[in-house]
Amino acid sequence: MKQYRILIDCADKKGLVYTTSKLFYELELNILSNHEFVDSDNEKFFMRSVVEGEIEEATLHEKLNDVLMDEINFKVVSPRKKNIVLMVTKESHCLGDILIRYEAGELDANIVAVVSNYDLLEPLVDKFDIPFFCVSHEGLDRNQHELEVLKCLEQFKDIDYIVLAKYMRILTPHFVEAYRDKIINIHHSFLPAFIGANPYKQAHERGVKIIGATAHFVNNDLDEGPIISQDVINVNHDHSWKDMQRSGRDVEKITLSRALKLALEDRIFVHKNKTVIF
Amino acid sequence: MKQYRILIDCADKKGLVYTTSKLFYELELNILSNHEFVDSDNEKFFMRSVVEGEIEEATLHEKLNDVLMDEINFKVVSPRKKNIVLMVTKESHCLGDILIRYEAGELDANIVAVVSNYDLLEPLVDKFDIPFFCVSHEGLDRNQHELEVLKCLEQFKDIDYIVLAKYMRILTPHFVEAYRDKIINIHHSFLPAFIGANPYKQAHERGVKIIGATAHFVNNDLDEGPIISQDVINVNHDHSWKDMQRSGRDVEKITLSRALKLALEDRIFVHKNKTVIF
Amino acid sequence: MKQYRILIDCADKKGLVYTTSKLFYELELNILSNHEFVDSDNEKFFMRSVVEGEIEEATLHEKLNDVLMDEINFKVVSPRKKNIVLMVTKESHCLGDILIRYEAGELDANIVAVVSNYDLLEPLVDKFDIPFFCVSHEGLDRNQHELEVLKCLEQFKDIDYIVLAKYMRILTPHFVEAYRDKIINIHHSFLPAFIGANPYKQAHERGVKIIGATAHFVNNDLDEGPIISQDVINVNHDHSWKDMQRSGRDVEKITLSRALKLALEDRIFVHKNKTVIF
Amino acid sequence: MKQYRILIDCADKKGLVYTTSKLFYELELNILSNHEFVDSDNEKFFMRSVVEGEIEEATLHEKLNDVLMDEINFKVVSPRKKNIVLMVTKESHCLGDILIRYEAGELDANIVAVVSNYDLLEPLVDKFDIPFFCVSHEGLDRNQHELEVLKCLEQFKDIDYIVLAKYMRILTPHFVEAYRDKIINIHHSFLPAFIGANPYKQAHERGVKIIGATAHFVNNDLDEGPIISQDVINVNHDHSWKDMQRSGRDVEKITLSRALKLALEDRIFVHKNKTVIF
Repeated sequence: MKQYRILIDCADKKGLVYTTSKLFYELELNILSNHEFVDSDNEKFFMRSVVEGEIEEATLHEKLNDVLMDEINFKVVSPRKKNIVLMVTKESHCLGDILIRYEAGELDANIVAVVSNYDLLEPLVDKFDIPFFCVSHEGLDRNQHELEVLKCLEQFKDIDYIVLAKYMRILTPHFVEAYRDKIINIHHSFLPAFIGANPYKQAHERGVKIIGATAHFVNNDLDEGPIISQDVINVNHDHSWKDMQRSGRDVEKITLSRALKLALEDRIFVHKNKTVIF
Repeated sequence: MKQYRILIDCADKKGLVYTTSKLFYELELNILSNHEFVDSDNEKFFMRSVVEGEIEEATLHEKLNDVLMDEINFKVVSPRKKNIVLMVTKESHCLGDILIRYEAGELDANIVAVVSNYDLLEPLVDKFDIPFFCVSHEGLDRNQHELEVLKCLEQFKDIDYIVLAKYMRILTPHFVEAYRDKIINIHHSFLPAFIGANPYKQAHERGVKIIGATAHFVNNDLDEGPIISQDVINVNHDHSWKDMQRSGRDVEKITLSRALKLALEDRIFVHKNKTVIF
Repeated sequence: MKQYRILIDCADKKGLVYTTSKLFYELELNILSNHEFVDSDNEKFFMRSVVEGEIEEATLHEKLNDVLMDEINFKVVSPRKKNIVLMVTKESHCLGDILIRYEAGELDANIVAVVSNYDLLEPLVDKFDIPFFCVSHEGLDRNQHELEVLKCLEQFKDIDYIVLAKYMRILTPHFVEAYRDKIINIHHSFLPAFIGANPYKQAHERGVKIIGATAHFVNNDLDEGPIISQDVINVNHDHSWKDMQRSGRDVEKITLSRALKLALEDRIFVHKNKTVIF
Repeated sequence: MKQYRILIDCADKKGLVYTTSKLFYELELNILSNHEFVDSDNEKFFMRSVVEGEIEEATLHEKLNDVLMDEINFKVVSPRKKNIVLMVTKESHCLGDILIRYEAGELDANIVAVVSNYDLLEPLVDKFDIPFFCVSHEGLDRNQHELEVLKCLEQFKDIDYIVLAKYMRILTPHFVEAYRDKIINIHHSFLPAFIGANPYKQAHERGVKIIGATAHFVNNDLDEGPIISQDVINVNHDHSWKDMQRSGRDVEKITLSRALKLALEDRIFVHKNKTVIF
């Protein structure tokens, strides 16, 4: 038996569930799980079905194409290990969390490389026998450095996701466009609070009682892309901003790993600046 | 346009989504929301669809009956105010929370009566012009008292739910049977921890760092019915059991009101000792 | 035995704990609880001691004055019911939560009045026999309306706190100055995210996965005063902004009531734009 | 300047704060932080002061001894790396979390060894150049195996804490006694719910809506020792017990690491079956 994830993302209209469930029935597919959502504000329909059967992927795709026709945006995905690149700077907590899960076989992914603008985390990455590339930004302006990074990334075919696991440099629109909807970032605040640099210092100065972290897709507005997951933790007056940073790291790593898992399982739809997550 | 909630709860088999979505399509019903769940351990299928159309309730029921046939357990529900009875003892926080929501028109319900074994909360209930019945347990044994309570309840036709909003007496199997799957209780602990009397004292003695509350349907095992909702709050060594009780009350009332809202919206399926909630 | 709360808030220097604990020892006071915090960034010392003994308040004050001397800012507070005024507009959930607690004797306060710019909540307030004042803003500009409100408030002597329990008008600096450090507001977002109007709509448009509420003292910057308490709740793509508002109300009322309790127990110190809470 | 943690844990009596703060003042020590708690049920006093000054540890100890005298139980601790041994079975998430923190220099500890009853995690531990000892239980009864483990542990002098990072065997009273108040365990449920084997399966069967994890000191009653920290995560009907296990792992590792940090910073007092944590 083969398993497929069928992802539909289109303008809402009557009969979409009927059409697909009819096809699944005729093809003798078992529906293992089925999620739909109608975004009535935007008249959009989203569906994720996991089905099981004897059919080949190409045939299933063709059959779906026949019934859904041109205007319907759909994908058929066979569960497979996705290719991911991690980008980091100096902090190891998000990287380490992903590496430990990777080593345990918990991630449905191949980590094809770790890319950093420093060599500080090379020894950690080496332990796990994953290629590490240091692309230093020293002496380069933002554009020059990014071109070097892009050149480095080009050697890897079929990158499914780039995970910014505390990569502390801002990406240009050029980079973002090259990996559109494929870059997942962890921002160390509860967005949209404390956009930009040093959110823990900002949070400490503001005297908040809760801090958080936000995993999101990257678009061209700094820290403004579609949010995938968020989590928070209580703090109080006794916390210095360094304490907040320390507590915040646990939230960051769990939030990023959770978002990555959702992406690897094809559970995220992006529409405009928002996500639908099944 | 009329709105209906269609609730299906049956043994899983192929084609259930197809059959129903075909009917909805042919009847020109809009699907406003649709949730399915397959419990593969128990080979059970659960579905809740909210649809909109010109059809009469009786006709829709008949049509569904035609396609789903005998072995399928389904319900068609028109959104309507459900009849509820609140039962209380001495504490007002859960009762008060429900009364304030009721007054604001937030609950899709008629509170037909409040029944108590004390008269302490009568003045509060009177403010909201809701009939209050004191059925004292003094001088009566458990069975005698319950018979009095049941007699009191009998005057209300078509009770949809009985909400035990801190009713601190244990119900007999006879009572539970009379209102099977209709009694919602709030237990002041994170079940299954601290079953039974004075859970805050138990929690304090055990030195837990988190306390909680559990809303559940009542069955014949004390505090063992299907769980609808749970929530928790942090505590520490500085909390006496009275402090825990005080903090816990906020969790209790929110958890109970959340469960009640789910019930009023027909979002809860009960299967064996568990709930499926859409 | 009498109980006192001693609150010290001053520049940090050596020997403060020694000086006060020596005095408590000599006066034969039992220390029931004792909290200190040194804000080393600002070189500030905060202390809250609850003591018990035979001494009169005036004597204790004098003795503390002798040892702490001029430069030390301290207060001796006898636990007593504080006078509070509630201000509301149209929503009843925060008001109702406070009224139910009040009725249960849970609040160490006298609610001397409820003031509103609408008469919508008058029936609810009347149930609890609390004076209700409608000061309509119709036909008045902001300043004129506020002068009317201030005139209304003037009749109440010794207001300890004004609680903005969903009062949906912005206060002028003149008003804020008149009740400096005495106005507690609930903002229906996780500040500093979504300052200003309709935060739930803002949150929905941003596609956040968590929403929150913030209780804070009011100063002259809109939604920028010292934060007392915050809480959050998970949401997802399925929530319309109305759903967020509905879920958010539970967080709002609990967060505001928690902040009010802290204030009534003299547990909050304000320093610059932050709070220290024991 | 040297820093010391002074930990007092004794029967409550008047003047304890006075006596110690007087000494600190006379010794010209800065008080960096100060926490006290009076457990009035048990008439116990707990205090943790962090002080800074020119004094030697031995002198400070002697001076404290002079003023506190015989009946007072106190400790003076110089912040130093504590020696810890990790014990594991097959799962890597807690171990990995600790190793990544260790590598980042985040833990004030030396991991002197990892001991396991399987060799499965040896490759992971080897990456971090920490001695790994496999003490297989095969062919041995519980007592024989434990004697082997104890023999293995004996080679390490001055073990401060043994961290059971998912060590899936029950320890005998003999072992617990040998490392009294030094063994920290993570239990994969929200204690006291689901004591014993396979708590996720138990939780799934019970249909709970929240699962949790508990870090606690080990005593002779299975899963009954003093609780250090707890945390929870929401689940729903859609989670199989394997899903619960997967989500639960994140809670387990964060909860255990948090407890370990508290222990390393000498923030935990144990009294009877409870902890006081500053």
